[in-house]
Amino acid sequence: MTYPILVLNGPNLNLLGTRETSIYGSETLADIESMCIAHGANLGLRVVCYQSNHEGQLVEWIHQHRGAAEAVLINAGAYSHTSIAIHDALRAFEGFIVEIHLSNIYRREQFRHHSHISAAADAVICGLGSVGYRLALDAVANRLTSKKND
Amino acid sequence: MTYPILVLNGPNLNLLGTRETSIYGSETLADIESMCIAHGANLGLRVVCYQSNHEGQLVEWIHQHRGAAEAVLINAGAYSHTSIAIHDALRAFEGFIVEIHLSNIYRREQFRHHSHISAAADAVICGLGSVGYRLALDAVANRLTSKKND
Amino acid sequence: MTYPILVLNGPNLNLLGTRETSIYGSETLADIESMCIAHGANLGLRVVCYQSNHEGQLVEWIHQHRGAAEAVLINAGAYSHTSIAIHDALRAFEGFIVEIHLSNIYRREQFRHHSHISAAADAVICGLGSVGYRLALDAVANRLTSKKND
Amino acid sequence: MTYPILVLNGPNLNLLGTRETSIYGSETLADIESMCIAHGANLGLRVVCYQSNHEGQLVEWIHQHRGAAEAVLINAGAYSHTSIAIHDALRAFEGFIVEIHLSNIYRREQFRHHSHISAAADAVICGLGSVGYRLALDAVANRLTSKKND
Amino acid sequence: MTYPILVLNGPNLNLLGTRETSIYGSETLADIESMCIAHGANLGLRVVCYQSNHEGQLVEWIHQHRGAAEAVLINAGAYSHTSIAIHDALRAFEGFIVEIHLSNIYRREQFRHHSHISAAADAVICGLGSVGYRLALDAVANRLTSKKND
Amino acid sequence: MTYPILVLNGPNLNLLGTRETSIYGSETLADIESMCIAHGANLGLRVVCYQSNHEGQLVEWIHQHRGAAEAVLINAGAYSHTSIAIHDALRAFEGFIVEIHLSNIYRREQFRHHSHISAAADAVICGLGSVGYRLALDAVANRLTSKKND
Amino acid sequence: MTYPILVLNGPNLNLLGTRETSIYGSETLADIESMCIAHGANLGLRVVCYQSNHEGQLVEWIHQHRGAAEAVLINAGAYSHTSIAIHDALRAFEGFIVEIHLSNIYRREQFRHHSHISAAADAVICGLGSVGYRLALDAVANRLTSKKND
Amino acid sequence: MTYPILVLNGPNLNLLGTRETSIYGSETLADIESMCIAHGANLGLRVVCYQSNHEGQLVEWIHQHRGAAEAVLINAGAYSHTSIAIHDALRAFEGFIVEIHLSNIYRREQFRHHSHISAAADAVICGLGSVGYRLALDAVANRLTSKKND
Amino acid sequence: MTYPILVLNGPNLNLLGTRETSIYGSETLADIESMCIAHGANLGLRVVCYQSNHEGQLVEWIHQHRGAAEAVLINAGAYSHTSIAIHDALRAFEGFIVEIHLSNIYRREQFRHHSHISAAADAVICGLGSVGYRLALDAVANRLTSKKND
Amino acid sequence: MTYPILVLNGPNLNLLGTRETSIYGSETLADIESMCIAHGANLGLRVVCYQSNHEGQLVEWIHQHRGAAEAVLINAGAYSHTSIAIHDALRAFEGFIVEIHLSNIYRREQFRHHSHISAAADAVICGLGSVGYRLALDAVANRLTSKKND
Amino acid sequence: MTYPILVLNGPNLNLLGTRETSIYGSETLADIESMCIAHGANLGLRVVCYQSNHEGQLVEWIHQHRGAAEAVLINAGAYSHTSIAIHDALRAFEGFIVEIHLSNIYRREQFRHHSHISAAADAVICGLGSVGYRLALDAVANRLTSKKND
Amino acid sequence: MTYPILVLNGPNLNLLGTRETSIYGSETLADIESMCIAHGANLGLRVVCYQSNHEGQLVEWIHQHRGAAEAVLINAGAYSHTSIAIHDALRAFEGFIVEIHLSNIYRREQFRHHSHISAAADAVICGLGSVGYRLALDAVANRLTSKKND
Repeated sequence: MTYPILVLNGPNLNLLGTRETSIYGSETLADIESMCIAHGANLGLRVVCYQSNHEGQLVEWIHQHRGAAEAVLINAGAYSHTSIAIHDALRAFEGFIVEIHLSNIYRREQFRHHSHISAAADAVICGLGSVGYRLALDAVANRLTSKKND
Repeated sequence: MTYPILVLNGPNLNLLGTRETSIYGSETLADIESMCIAHGANLGLRVVCYQSNHEGQLVEWIHQHRGAAEAVLINAGAYSHTSIAIHDALRAFEGFIVEIHLSNIYRREQFRHHSHISAAADAVICGLGSVGYRLALDAVANRLTSKKND
Repeated sequence: MTYPILVLNGPNLNLLGTRETSIYGSETLADIESMCIAHGANLGLRVVCYQSNHEGQLVEWIHQHRGAAEAVLINAGAYSHTSIAIHDALRAFEGFIVEIHLSNIYRREQFRHHSHISAAADAVICGLGSVGYRLALDAVANRLTSKKND
Repeated sequence: MTYPILVLNGPNLNLLGTRETSIYGSETLADIESMCIAHGANLGLRVVCYQSNHEGQLVEWIHQHRGAAEAVLINAGAYSHTSIAIHDALRAFEGFIVEIHLSNIYRREQFRHHSHISAAADAVICGLGSVGYRLALDAVANRLTSKKND
Repeated sequence: MTYPILVLNGPNLNLLGTRETSIYGSETLADIESMCIAHGANLGLRVVCYQSNHEGQLVEWIHQHRGAAEAVLINAGAYSHTSIAIHDALRAFEGFIVEIHLSNIYRREQFRHHSHISAAADAVICGLGSVGYRLALDAVANRLTSKKND
Repeated sequence: MTYPILVLNGPNLNLLGTRETSIYGSETLADIESMCIAHGANLGLRVVCYQSNHEGQLVEWIHQHRGAAEAVLINAGAYSHTSIAIHDALRAFEGFIVEIHLSNIYRREQFRHHSHISAAADAVICGLGSVGYRLALDAVANRLTSKKND
Repeated sequence: MTYPILVLNGPNLNLLGTRETSIYGSETLADIESMCIAHGANLGLRVVCYQSNHEGQLVEWIHQHRGAAEAVLINAGAYSHTSIAIHDALRAFEGFIVEIHLSNIYRREQFRHHSHISAAADAVICGLGSVGYRLALDAVANRLTSKKND
Repeated sequence: MTYPILVLNGPNLNLLGTRETSIYGSETLADIESMCIAHGANLGLRVVCYQSNHEGQLVEWIHQHRGAAEAVLINAGAYSHTSIAIHDALRAFEGFIVEIHLSNIYRREQFRHHSHISAAADAVICGLGSVGYRLALDAVANRLTSKKND
Repeated sequence: MTYPILVLNGPNLNLLGTRETSIYGSETLADIESMCIAHGANLGLRVVCYQSNHEGQLVEWIHQHRGAAEAVLINAGAYSHTSIAIHDALRAFEGFIVEIHLSNIYRREQFRHHSHISAAADAVICGLGSVGYRLALDAVANRLTSKKND
Repeated sequence: MTYPILVLNGPNLNLLGTRETSIYGSETLADIESMCIAHGANLGLRVVCYQSNHEGQLVEWIHQHRGAAEAVLINAGAYSHTSIAIHDALRAFEGFIVEIHLSNIYRREQFRHHSHISAAADAVICGLGSVGYRLALDAVANRLTSKKND
Repeated sequence: MTYPILVLNGPNLNLLGTRETSIYGSETLADIESMCIAHGANLGLRVVCYQSNHEGQLVEWIHQHRGAAEAVLINAGAYSHTSIAIHDALRAFEGFIVEIHLSNIYRREQFRHHSHISAAADAVICGLGSVGYRLALDAVANRLTSKKND
Repeated sequence: MTYPILVLNGPNLNLLGTRETSIYGSETLADIESMCIAHGANLGLRVVCYQSNHEGQLVEWIHQHRGAAEAVLINAGAYSHTSIAIHDALRAFEGFIVEIHLSNIYRREQFRHHSHISAAADAVICGLGSVGYRLALDAVANRLTSKKND
């Protein structure tokens, strides 16, 4: 398998480890991305990580990996709740899609309870902190293996 | 008449012809833009085309053409449903504005039924595929002619 | 091709040119119907025009032209917002359907923002005044030509 | 007993058997009316059938049968969802009222889930196709018999 | 003054005096119309009365009296709550418009609390039974007198 | 008959003739009260007038006239839209109640379209300016006469 | 045919004939079940009847009759309005499903107007009292006969 | 560590592998429970599995494991959307809670989009089929390890 | 203990025993206040009673008893549903607060189902008629005793 | 008097004294039930107490005490907010019904603000902790005494 | 300039410095009023301060200063959210109007997010504590100066 | 004090002085920024100004000034109503935050009445034109002084 797994993080996630640590924990985004790359390698997956605060940039990274990535793991942050553009871009992506949230968004403010990403994703994992990313990679590996065996 | 007609396409429309072809048809954005330029030339209109996945970029193209374009044809894609910023930019544009959608958005998901663009536009054309762009240019030509004759 | 194009106008449109001319312009319904017939002839289309203030009459004209008209252009006026019966009749019509509104209904009162016709139509054109009827005929001609060439 | 049973069908039901047969089946309205008359005769009931696409006509048939029909069976089609006028007319009718729908309206579009007729009717039968009419006649016969025996 | 005053009654009002007399009283529509004509004569007004169960018919009577009636008194019955078409027709009428309801609609079912007619009328009188018609005529006479004296 | 007719005016109506005269006209509250007293005298009615900007005061005037007034004419101004207390007081009043508004409240801001008074009143008159008060007195006189003749 | 017809009654229906008889009539549940068994026998159907006040029990009876009953007649009582679990169980049942209500639920409290069962059922009969059960059995017999004849 | 991990499955999940296999896959509940026990053993976790169609039974199993289970993995099926009782029971449970859904509930009917369980759980995993259970166990193991190391 | 217990009654409650006796019973407010004073005396509580139809007056009595009353028993009548000012005043009161309603407000009109007082009170008692006042005093006595014993 | 008073507690109330003690206090359910029995004895009332986590069980206890209990005191816990079945069962109970909540539900989460029980109960007491049960018994004793004296 | 600046404070603001000091700070209303008078003097403005808990009193102070005050600074407290009467009074005032709130009302309970005052005011300042009053005076001074210079 | 004050302006504000001058006045953004810098200097504050039409850019400027600016003054324009991303970024900023709007947004279209920024800001000033910026700087200076004196 030659295509990578795309790990996308959205607005404000570059601040991880430095803001509202009671909600998001003390790991930085660099910590999470390193863990993803290492854990992916253990599973035989090549992981590529990006972060942007720009809605349009996230849309374009998804475009660029159509037919060029096995899966997208996406934590779209605040854009989860407002972006139909990312929803549409994900629907144009043929691979497996897992939506991730560090915190349990259903326990937070009302305006974070609805995600436009959920309806475009294959699966959702939330409330497990950075472990959620690792489990999402496990799910991807599992999916790719069973597909190969079909 | 020396000012051009601006044709703006928003997020994900760069993927035309390659995604959800049952909804959007097999023409690419380049096909549509070429058609617009050619058809505009036949009508004596100079057509200029842009596409961006960035909300801010669309806002700025509209700004740059204030007093410098006769009309804007805009298919704001997913931003139609979420962007008050583009709505505001269009309200600052003095020329004629036509909103276009390739598909009939009223037959699709609930969250595509409301467009912030509609209330800022002079006219709306949807559901005619790329023909909608051509007809919008006809409408612009018609409007400019009758204005000249006033 | 032997079947006509049906142009239907709904309640109060017989008053065109005599009421709220700041919204609807000074053309009369007769002006618009003449233009439609002439423009249709140029496109090789036979256009037939009807107007009624009765919901049931509009339903029945649609019934009578099932399998007997290539397309319906319909400006259902106020019934757009209240009639599921016309919606149902249009769904029983196999040809191409274009909904037309002279004004941009999305800029007017709240109760004019939703149209039951939109979800039954193939395309929607609004806000272009009587030009909208001409462009709708262009779209029909375009559709018929490409169908013949299939 | 000398008064008839009125069977009223509303807008678009004259198209039965020719539109959306996957929803409504292939029987025509004439088939259903014949069946109603024959089945009524077996039950000792005189059945009279009308259909109209005009809301006002349906209102008037109900008026004309006040004190002159034992029961009304009404499939008001699309007017079920929009007509308070028919609701009011039915409330002025003293006999037994059964609302009928061929399809299960609760499985269809949201705007068909509410019927103004239901609150004016004594009973509702839906989703049984033309069998619903026959069962409604059975219910009427049953009601008349038990009333006679009081 | 040569133009008449139009008194329009809508669906089911032909049944007055025979249905739900606890709500609507025992006067018939003929009683009310006679009273209107006589009371109008006393005030120097020529009163013309119509009733229809057809929405389109009411629309057309309003059309026919544009520029040909001083005022419209309208009890649109159930259409008050559902008809934008009558609303639009009234907006095209230049004279004085009084909406009348026999009963106090704000004390009845929820779906009778909103009237599309109210926003198109100059005044509303409800809950006074047939006296409401007489007072509306008084208001019209008063309006015409003060206009003449301007 | 010895009991008076109570004419109640609510908050801000003491400013009549001095604010928003395009909506409310140039008559002062004193003008309207004088007219009511004079017109009442012509009808054989003793009219008593009060105005207050205090919700509790209006409640108490209604209390004090239980069993001591034939009717209440009330223009509760802004309290119409917010006061359940006045609604309750009116429901404890046994006489005839007419709600009056100078302007057509259904043509104004959304928050003026609902009145708590309407559901407690027998009748509603709005949009006729000060004439509305005079007609309301006529309605009261009519009611008292017919009651006496029962 | 060897499979039975399942007649399920939900919470509080064991009280039939003893509570709110003005709504539900004086027949007991035993009366209705006896009638169903007898009427079914006349139609050549074996009818089996159950009642429970437990949501989970109703779910399990439906499970146990998957592939083991021709049809389910279900009056889920109050669970109609709250149980997605029964909705899901019914969707897993392959046979014919008729929802029954003794009273016309659309004339009762607002919270009884929506039923989760309706969208999972093939047909709905309500407002006919116990006659509704008999007609539902007629509908089942009719369905089975026509299936056999296919 | 001596306390087990509780795996709870709610209504209709006993039908897994036999209904709507396009949504839920062909594994049976026994398959999933065996996998959970085996995978748990690999992780050093003792897994105990229960299923019930009764809301009250699920509540009681949660009660019985307060202070007697390290974590609860719960797929409450249809009760997710209707049960505040299970929500309350979970809030009385001190251990770690993961909500699981086999399918992506955000892509299904509107009434499945809200879960009362989500606001009581620590984490949510949905749309990964039976893999979701395995990952949830991984998350539990991870949590227990990091707690031990604090 | 030297501070009194404040019993506040709001608008229209001065009419008790004289209006809508089927809802509120035949006791007068004086009866209830006497009972409260006597029953309080038995419990060793000094009870002080006030009634006002003025929202501002109720606010001020609450202010005057800050730090000067052990508890407030309040039946705010219609102001319960509209007054945030009383809600705020109660939140500034440090003592125990019991909201009382004579009737069961949840069985009455929709607009009486929500009370702004409930969220500011410690407890709510409704539907017990004047007994509710007596029980509220019992609850206050109980609370004061247990506080003294802390 | 020979019939008992039924005290019903719903789901999760068996956990009283062990969960969320800041909300519910430290008394156990056994403490409350003992207090109820003792206090009832003092009032000459025989009190019988039940608790269940099963909705259907609560329904059936109410059924079994129709005509066999003087009153029901019910704290339906979470089922208060979701169970129409218990609402219906209570409406079939002829005796006096008091709804009890330990905490003030109007100060808690939004989804606890509406109770289906309230509209079926005669009275509501909430926010007084276990004292609420004692006062409810007082209210019952009061009611029975006054009934006996009629 | 001879007219004063009116500073109005509404219900409960007389308690400032003594209630919920974490929200409102420890300054008393007298402190704020003194500061306003002193700061106004520095700016050459005569400041007059009033406070009332009565909605009607606030209305009347506004009336009395029509044409007799340059500006109104108003913190209407809880009446901000419920009073259309004050809204109307302010609309009849010709001078400059600034709405003030000590706290940021958009961060508090939902029912404090909407203010009827905002739509009648020229400007809104909130969340700055008593500094907000001082800045509002600065804004008034600024406005008066620029008006004089026109 | 060495940290600057950040003045951020959002989409379309670069057009100030050239669009909708009846709403926004004739000052340009450069005018406002110059005034802010000069007025800040007078107050001893170093002011830095940025404008962008890109949501992501605004997010990043806020990030870059965490721990590096004393305060943020933000007029987020249309993004006020749609951006949770900016809301989140502001919540990660430790300094003082003032939201500014030139116009009174509560008097404009409905979709401008809610701002996501308000709940993240410490204070809100709107409707004072460019004066609002100056007053916000005054408020910041005031805040910094009082903090220093603590």
